[in-house]
Amino acid sequence: MSTTRLIALDWGTTSLRAYRLGDNGAVLDKRGLPWGIMNLPSVDASDGDGSRHAGFVKAFDEACGDWLRDTSGTPVIAAGMVGSAQGWREAAYVDMPLAVAEVGKQLTRVDVSGGLVLHIVPGLLQRGHLPNVIRGEETQVVGILESLQGDAEVLIGLPGTHSKWVRVQERRMTHFDTFMTGEVYAVLSQHTILGRTMDRDGEPDHAAFERGLRVAQTEEGRAGVLSTIFSSRTLGLVGELGPRSQPDYLSGLLIGHEIAALKSTREAAGCAPSPHIILIGDDKLCARYQTALNLYGLHLNGIDIAAQATETGLWKIALQAGLLS
Amino acid sequence: MSTTRLIALDWGTTSLRAYRLGDNGAVLDKRGLPWGIMNLPSVDASDGDGSRHAGFVKAFDEACGDWLRDTSGTPVIAAGMVGSAQGWREAAYVDMPLAVAEVGKQLTRVDVSGGLVLHIVPGLLQRGHLPNVIRGEETQVVGILESLQGDAEVLIGLPGTHSKWVRVQERRMTHFDTFMTGEVYAVLSQHTILGRTMDRDGEPDHAAFERGLRVAQTEEGRAGVLSTIFSSRTLGLVGELGPRSQPDYLSGLLIGHEIAALKSTREAAGCAPSPHIILIGDDKLCARYQTALNLYGLHLNGIDIAAQATETGLWKIALQAGLLS
Repeated sequence: MSTTRLIALDWGTTSLRAYRLGDNGAVLDKRGLPWGIMNLPSVDASDGDGSRHAGFVKAFDEACGDWLRDTSGTPVIAAGMVGSAQGWREAAYVDMPLAVAEVGKQLTRVDVSGGLVLHIVPGLLQRGHLPNVIRGEETQVVGILESLQGDAEVLIGLPGTHSKWVRVQERRMTHFDTFMTGEVYAVLSQHTILGRTMDRDGEPDHAAFERGLRVAQTEEGRAGVLSTIFSSRTLGLVGELGPRSQPDYLSGLLIGHEIAALKSTREAAGCAPSPHIILIGDDKLCARYQTALNLYGLHLNGIDIAAQATETGLWKIALQAGLLS
Repeated sequence: MSTTRLIALDWGTTSLRAYRLGDNGAVLDKRGLPWGIMNLPSVDASDGDGSRHAGFVKAFDEACGDWLRDTSGTPVIAAGMVGSAQGWREAAYVDMPLAVAEVGKQLTRVDVSGGLVLHIVPGLLQRGHLPNVIRGEETQVVGILESLQGDAEVLIGLPGTHSKWVRVQERRMTHFDTFMTGEVYAVLSQHTILGRTMDRDGEPDHAAFERGLRVAQTEEGRAGVLSTIFSSRTLGLVGELGPRSQPDYLSGLLIGHEIAALKSTREAAGCAPSPHIILIGDDKLCARYQTALNLYGLHLNGIDIAAQATETGLWKIALQAGLLS
C-alpha cells in the first residue's frame, strides 16, 4: 500500500466523502458514507451535546479510522458544513476578498480523541447590503485554481442546490453570487400548482429545456421569475407543452434567469463580457449550464468542466497550512 | 324577506361562498362552505364520474338549495375554478382583450337537476409567447369597473396566492400579468433552507418588511429573485436579521420584486407611469401592496381598496347575460 499523506473529508449536510491521499495528492482510496451533519450515526450517550460529539466521532471513525490506524500521525482535513454553526465546530467565515493561496491560513482545530486533530476549512463571507456566504465551494475553487497558470480572470460556476459563481481575478477570489436555483426548482415542482400538471418520469426534453432557457431574454422575461414560472402551467393549458416537457421547461426557465442575471451583474460591475469559465459539479447539470452559457453568449473564452476539485483543493489547502511536511 | 333576484356563487378550489342578492344586487344573505372543487362533500354513488357530479350537486344544494326552494325560478350564476377543467363543467377561456361589458355574453350552462341551470362565468386567456390565464378575477374586475365612471386607465391589482394585475383601458381589459408571489413565499418559507432560520410566530415586523421591499431597487437587486432571497438567511447569519424578522423581510423582498417588475413591464409597454390603482383582496395583504406601490412610485394617481367585488361582479355579469329580467 502506498504511503498515506493526508486524509481529506468532504463533509456536507447529507453525506460524508473520505479520501486517502498519497504523494502529490494522488487518490489512493475513497469512500462515501451517509453521515452528513444532519444525519449522524446514533450512539449511546446520556446528554445531548455529548451524544452529538460522539456521533461526529463515530462518523469520523467509520470514515477514516482504519486508515489512521494503518498510518498513525497522518494529518486530517475537512471542508463543508461540518464547519458550520450546526457542524462539529464552527469554523468562522473569512472575509472576502481573499487570495486563493490564503485559504489554508485560518483552519479551525477539533480535538477528536487521543491527540487526534481534525482541521476544518473556513467558509467565506462577502459583506455588504446583502451578505453572501460560501462553505465548501471555497475548497473546490482552490482545487481548480492551483492547477491554473496566469492571472487572467476566471469565473468558476458550481451549479447545484444553490449555484455559486466565484469571480477570481489575479488569483484572488474577489466576488461571488449565490442563486437558489436548484432548491427553488425542487420546491416549485414538488409543492406548487406547477407540479400538478407535470409528469417527472419522462426522458429529458432538450427542446423544452432550451425553450425555457430563452424566456429570460424575451420581452416577457422582463416580468421576472415570479411571473414567468406561471407559463409552465399555462403553456400546458393551451396545449403547447405536455406534462413530460414541463419539468425541463421549468428547469431551463430558472437556469436562464440565473445566467441572464449573472450576465447583468457582471456588466454592471464592469467585468469582461465573456471570461474563461470553469464549471464544477454533476455532469448532467454542468451540461445544462453549458448550454445556457452558450445561449447567453458567455462562452467566448471557453468553458471547461473540472473534476476532483474537492480532493485536490483539500490537498492544496493542507499544503498552504503546513500540515504536509 | 326581501325578494331574491339572483343566487351568486364564488366557487373556488378550497371554498364556496354563496350570496343571495335582492334588488339592485343588494346582499340579502351570504354563507361560506368548505366545498371547494378539490374538497367536495362525499356522496354514495357507484361510478366515479357520477359521484363527482353528485358531489357538486350536494355542495350546490347546501349552498343555496333552501334559497331556491323559497323563490323558485331565481337564476344562479357562479365564477371561479368551478368552471375549470377540474370543475363541474369547463367554461372555456375567452380571448383577451375583452370589453368589461362583454364578460356575461359567454356563460356556460350546467343542468343541475329538475330544470335548474347554473351559469358559469368564463375565464380569460391572454395568448402569446407566454400565455396567461385568469379565472375568477375577471368577475372582480367587472364588479369594480361597472361602478367607475370614465375611460381613463385603471390598473386593478388582486394580490393573493397568485397576484393578478389587470390593465383596463377605455373599459376594455387589455392586458394582465400573473405573479406567483404568495405561493412562492409559502413554499420558500415552508420547504427550503430559508424557513429553517425563521420563526413565523412573531408579530409583524414592518421595518423588516420595508427593508425587503427595497432590495429589488438596489444594485444587488439586479441579480434577481433567485439570488436575493438567499439574503433572508445570510442577514441572519451575520446577526442583522432575527428569526422573527425573516418572514416579513422575505415577504417584502418578493413583493418588491413583483412591483419592480410590474413597473418595468409597464414602462416597456409605454403605459402611464402611475395609473389609478384599485386593490382587491385581503385587507392586510392589500396594505402591504399599498406600501410597496408607494415605495416604487406607482401611487401618484391614487390607490383605492375595493370591497364586495365578487358579488357585485356576479350581479353585473348576470345583467349583461340577460338573466335578470
